[in-house]
Amino acid sequence: MPKLIEYQDMAPRAKTVVEGIAQARGIDPAAINNVWKALARHPAVMERFAAEMKAAFAPGKLDPLTKELVYLAVSITNQCDYCIASHGAMAQAKGMTEEMHEEFMSVVLAAQKGNKITTAYRVPVDAAFEEK
Amino acid sequence: MPKLIEYQDMAPRAKTVVEGIAQARGIDPAAINNVWKALARHPAVMERFAAEMKAAFAPGKLDPLTKELVYLAVSITNQCDYCIASHGAMAQAKGMTEEMHEEFMSVVLAAQKGNKITTAYRVPVDAAFEEK
Amino acid sequence: MPKLIEYQDMAPRAKTVVEGIAQARGIDPAAINNVWKALARHPAVMERFAAEMKAAFAPGKLDPLTKELVYLAVSITNQCDYCIASHGAMAQAKGMTEEMHEEFMSVVLAAQKGNKITTAYRVPVDAAFEEK
Amino acid sequence: MPKLIEYQDMAPRAKTVVEGIAQARGIDPAAINNVWKALARHPAVMERFAAEMKAAFAPGKLDPLTKELVYLAVSITNQCDYCIASHGAMAQAKGMTEEMHEEFMSVVLAAQKGNKITTAYRVPVDAAFEEK
Amino acid sequence: MPKLIEYQDMAPRAKTVVEGIAQARGIDPAAINNVWKALARHPAVMERFAAEMKAAFAPGKLDPLTKELVYLAVSITNQCDYCIASHGAMAQAKGMTEEMHEEFMSVVLAAQKGNKITTAYRVPVDAAFEEK
Amino acid sequence: MPKLIEYQDMAPRAKTVVEGIAQARGIDPAAINNVWKALARHPAVMERFAAEMKAAFAPGKLDPLTKELVYLAVSITNQCDYCIASHGAMAQAKGMTEEMHEEFMSVVLAAQKGNKITTAYRVPVDAAFEEK
Repeated sequence: MPKLIEYQDMAPRAKTVVEGIAQARGIDPAAINNVWKALARHPAVMERFAAEMKAAFAPGKLDPLTKELVYLAVSITNQCDYCIASHGAMAQAKGMTEEMHEEFMSVVLAAQKGNKITTAYRVPVDAAFEEK
Repeated sequence: MPKLIEYQDMAPRAKTVVEGIAQARGIDPAAINNVWKALARHPAVMERFAAEMKAAFAPGKLDPLTKELVYLAVSITNQCDYCIASHGAMAQAKGMTEEMHEEFMSVVLAAQKGNKITTAYRVPVDAAFEEK
Repeated sequence: MPKLIEYQDMAPRAKTVVEGIAQARGIDPAAINNVWKALARHPAVMERFAAEMKAAFAPGKLDPLTKELVYLAVSITNQCDYCIASHGAMAQAKGMTEEMHEEFMSVVLAAQKGNKITTAYRVPVDAAFEEK
Repeated sequence: MPKLIEYQDMAPRAKTVVEGIAQARGIDPAAINNVWKALARHPAVMERFAAEMKAAFAPGKLDPLTKELVYLAVSITNQCDYCIASHGAMAQAKGMTEEMHEEFMSVVLAAQKGNKITTAYRVPVDAAFEEK
Repeated sequence: MPKLIEYQDMAPRAKTVVEGIAQARGIDPAAINNVWKALARHPAVMERFAAEMKAAFAPGKLDPLTKELVYLAVSITNQCDYCIASHGAMAQAKGMTEEMHEEFMSVVLAAQKGNKITTAYRVPVDAAFEEK
Repeated sequence: MPKLIEYQDMAPRAKTVVEGIAQARGIDPAAINNVWKALARHPAVMERFAAEMKAAFAPGKLDPLTKELVYLAVSITNQCDYCIASHGAMAQAKGMTEEMHEEFMSVVLAAQKGNKITTAYRVPVDAAFEEK
């Protein structure tokens, strides 16, 4: 099976998922991103991921850019190149300026350091941070 | 050397760091969090982390809660219990409601899934996401 | 030193390791995989890894495909591209159908989510799960 | 909000999820595991995780024990203590003997080593492993 | 089976491993560390780990403290609490002063930052760093 | 903005950082490594990373090669390809022989295994390793 399956070659279940995403984004289904072309071989996994992404990015209390930054922070920490490239581009499309990007990176790197410091020094959780 | 060094027992350089943090937060230096009590044995590392945290959370283009959420997203991905406890509490103090927390978790978990999917299926980065 | 050392250019200790693997797989030593060509520069590391792989995949209570799936699950979690490519191919060679692959991915992704959820919510281990 | 919410104190949506799981396992809803008591504060996340777990462990081409081993392999790699404890117990309940457990650990550790070796030596993927 | 098996309750193969370690360290077998008491249930895994540790720490070109620092650096990066506690103590026993510990932490944290920066900015490897 | 910014196209703050590094290494600023060309878009992050690297590698109690090995150990554990390539080359430049490289790898892999073993078997920390 090829690594990437183009829209026109997908099975009906995969096509339906792609059409839903394409419609929501106002793009042609044939222009869908590679991640969906790769997932097309496994329609059940594909449907669940599409539904989960839709729910995660549905309008709510957090604004769309904040959500992209959270997604990007996870992707940098996991060192996922595809996700950094794609959600970096989406964060820019949703308003992330170069200045915001730099501030974001400062927080990501500070967190990274804080994570390793508290682990390396085996710091016990303060009583004040424990939920009752 | 004890694992945690109380403020009154710290060396002068460590005391200065703690006083700066305590003043900025409007708390008593003796009430400083455990991470600083653990770091006190290594003043140069402590000074750099304090300076980095101050710079990362300095007023800027991203609001304080967004920064906490980014910090928390990194900490969950790295599975740092101390950081999840402390920055979870800080996010609540900066306005994260239960509803926002749930939305945040939805994005973190979707990102987690996206990261592993693109890796497992070895998805190549779309040309559209490459910077020129 | 070149990154990859071809079989005919390997030192005797490395050649011996490759010959053992080639014989067990019924292939020509010159057709050995890249990982062994890279490891040839460090024969002691190479010998230990070859012995460990042989022991891990020796006939036993778990069938060969189950072992490949376990190996692949670790590799996806660690995000090791080489290992996903090579052990994905080996899993297919040992009988993994497209349907099984999809089921496998469903479990890997559910585990990934479970891991992050229990960490993010700081869930204490149930008494029932503690060994006496 | 308390860290763990007991069944009788859960909101209706959370109660429904717990009842579904309890029924499938043949247990009392009040005896549900801690992970669900922790998730009860976020019913949408809870519902999605319950549905994903149900789908992942639905009868299929892979037997239940193989799925538990895959789940456990991911959990060990991610170093999730709760998941190792809980799914270790479930694997035993589904037939994992001490002998199978040892074989499983051998594969997990060999994979771990293989992952780091191919990364450390920067091994390029063999052409034979690339999908066409 | 209990989580930890005391020396006097171990099976013969496990006892032999423990005796070898105890002799090399000049301690009583009953005073062996918990990791070996836990591994005793799986003698083949135990024997391989003992042999691998012995080979890794055998006298060679790198001095014993350097090896402990490398071991500790891996353990901090993986966030393994047991390993940080045990190999932190061993590093001190092999001569790591508080000053050296602080320098070590500075390098670990700089590396952590460098790792995440090069990933987040998707930095291509310089031609000068590629092996021919 | 381009992914990599050449020295002659950098803003003044970025140029100053690069000149400091180039002078310390005795190279032409135009020959600076890619990581700095990528960071040039975010001068505050760049300045902090340059300062942190300088402090971490400043002459001290640990020799330069030991520091490189610690940096490399972190990079392999995090699976950062750029850092493995660059700091592998730097370790060689600072005296790492092929024999030392192999010993180093043996320790890294033993640590990797020790980390996963203690996690998988949920080994409690020995009282002897706890700091008072």
